[in-house]
Amino acid sequence: MSPTPEPGLPARVRVHEVGPRDGLQNEKALLPFDVKAEFIHRLAAAGLTTIEATSFVHPKWVPQLADAERLFPLLRDLDGVRLPVLVPNERGLDRALALGAREVAVFASVTESFARANLNRTVDESLAMFTPVIARALDAEVPVRGYLSMCFGDPWEGEVPVDRVVRVARRLIDLGCAELSLGDTIGVATPGQVTALLTALNGAGIPTERLAVHFHDTYGQALANTLTALRHGVTTVDASAGGLGGCPFAKSATGNLATEDLLWMLEGLGIETGVDLDRLTGTSLWLAAHLGRPSPSRTVSALSPKES
Amino acid sequence: MSPTPEPGLPARVRVHEVGPRDGLQNEKALLPFDVKAEFIHRLAAAGLTTIEATSFVHPKWVPQLADAERLFPLLRDLDGVRLPVLVPNERGLDRALALGAREVAVFASVTESFARANLNRTVDESLAMFTPVIARALDAEVPVRGYLSMCFGDPWEGEVPVDRVVRVARRLIDLGCAELSLGDTIGVATPGQVTALLTALNGAGIPTERLAVHFHDTYGQALANTLTALRHGVTTVDASAGGLGGCPFAKSATGNLATEDLLWMLEGLGIETGVDLDRLTGTSLWLAAHLGRPSPSRTVSALSPKES
Repeated sequence: MSPTPEPGLPARVRVHEVGPRDGLQNEKALLPFDVKAEFIHRLAAAGLTTIEATSFVHPKWVPQLADAERLFPLLRDLDGVRLPVLVPNERGLDRALALGAREVAVFASVTESFARANLNRTVDESLAMFTPVIARALDAEVPVRGYLSMCFGDPWEGEVPVDRVVRVARRLIDLGCAELSLGDTIGVATPGQVTALLTALNGAGIPTERLAVHFHDTYGQALANTLTALRHGVTTVDASAGGLGGCPFAKSATGNLATEDLLWMLEGLGIETGVDLDRLTGTSLWLAAHLGRPSPSRTVSALSPKES
Repeated sequence: MSPTPEPGLPARVRVHEVGPRDGLQNEKALLPFDVKAEFIHRLAAAGLTTIEATSFVHPKWVPQLADAERLFPLLRDLDGVRLPVLVPNERGLDRALALGAREVAVFASVTESFARANLNRTVDESLAMFTPVIARALDAEVPVRGYLSMCFGDPWEGEVPVDRVVRVARRLIDLGCAELSLGDTIGVATPGQVTALLTALNGAGIPTERLAVHFHDTYGQALANTLTALRHGVTTVDASAGGLGGCPFAKSATGNLATEDLLWMLEGLGIETGVDLDRLTGTSLWLAAHLGRPSPSRTVSALSPKES
């Protein structure tokens, strides 16, 4: 399909692929680390240039990613590919730096309920915990991405006020985060909320260039929300190959926005990504066979040769 | 979730529910006509005010809707609900009028390939066939909706030029259609195409108030496309309860935009529809049990009490 460029949209979008981390972390199946390494190599071969590789969280909490020490060294040949890793605390940062990680991410909660549930801390206590993590990463010349979770709705608190997100965003920027990823962790957001939050963040002096969006497709809203963010000037979009990853806090097997569904829209809009959709779809079908379940991505399903 | 009104969007949207016709027509399962009648009653009870009830096509071509004569009389008690029916030709119109149908629809193709495949005619021959159908309906004071299929992409011809759609739209308006429904029959469209087509139709003197959009979610684009159409001023949106209906021309089990996914977005945007989302979700779960397969709607899945 030929591009149909539209005014008000960016010419290029960087896809921040979160399948190996946010995706696999929420899949029931435990994959061998060599399959994960092959997955990441296939993602890179499809043209993805930022691939969140794993998380250095305690194995007790996320058994799916307990193999980070074995997986990460297998990615050393991926020249020119950014491989950020999630670090929950200083101990995780130590492990990541020891293995040579060149980018890290911290995962903050905007709401008190989720901070308590996920981090066993208040929001401020979690930010205090991240302060030395970010400082030490920057000392090592390792840039830090800050995830903000529950930016739109929270399973315990309902709709999240915009000023709560702005406050945490401001703090993470002041602590030194190079980029913030605005997460709709339970997938409830609608486009008006996206516009409202991005406008408020700009009003607080946080430039759009430092913002990424991270939508889950739990209620089928992820792509409409992403389109809204693109119209606002956002050019970094988190997505998960094949729509990997259920949401543990919503009654649905649907996870992140599928990278393929995103690419179908971006290609149609004439927005460049450098990613080969057919090759990525092949990778998601290959991984689905390893996971023993079909991809929830509409585009993967439509392009699948098996369903003809 | 409280509404977040956004400038440039309509205050109210009319949902044109196509589940009983476009949805069930493309489902493998054959439902008893009394189950269909209950389905339509439940849709009306959920607040839907326009429900496309069935099609008076020859039973040989669409066995799923061969019971139109038995079904339609069971809907007589639905006061205040518009119940359009599809009529493929004069014979179908005769059958519909004999049963007291008060609104009908014709189904035209924009592309020669699909006109040949679906109607065994050229585009112009199909418009000639519709001419007396529309004229006679108007004589009987029965308004006619014109469906335009393959408005964006066609499985044989690829991307469809905008001027081809404009030509067929102009003809159907001139023949007397009160409303046109712009169909992305294979679900390939992206938002730039939606803007381009709506702009071209306005340029050809067809007012947006007479346009409805009809997206399929084959590649996960339906809601982003719908949002784009709303921004352009469209206020009538076709959708199918529970996302009923596969697409027979694409390798996917995914059908029409799910009414529930649409409602989640519209409610979040503070756009009124008069439809009760929870009640509709209950109806889609009830019908899914009759069909023996889960609803492909993300919202139905997320709201389903069974998946907790």
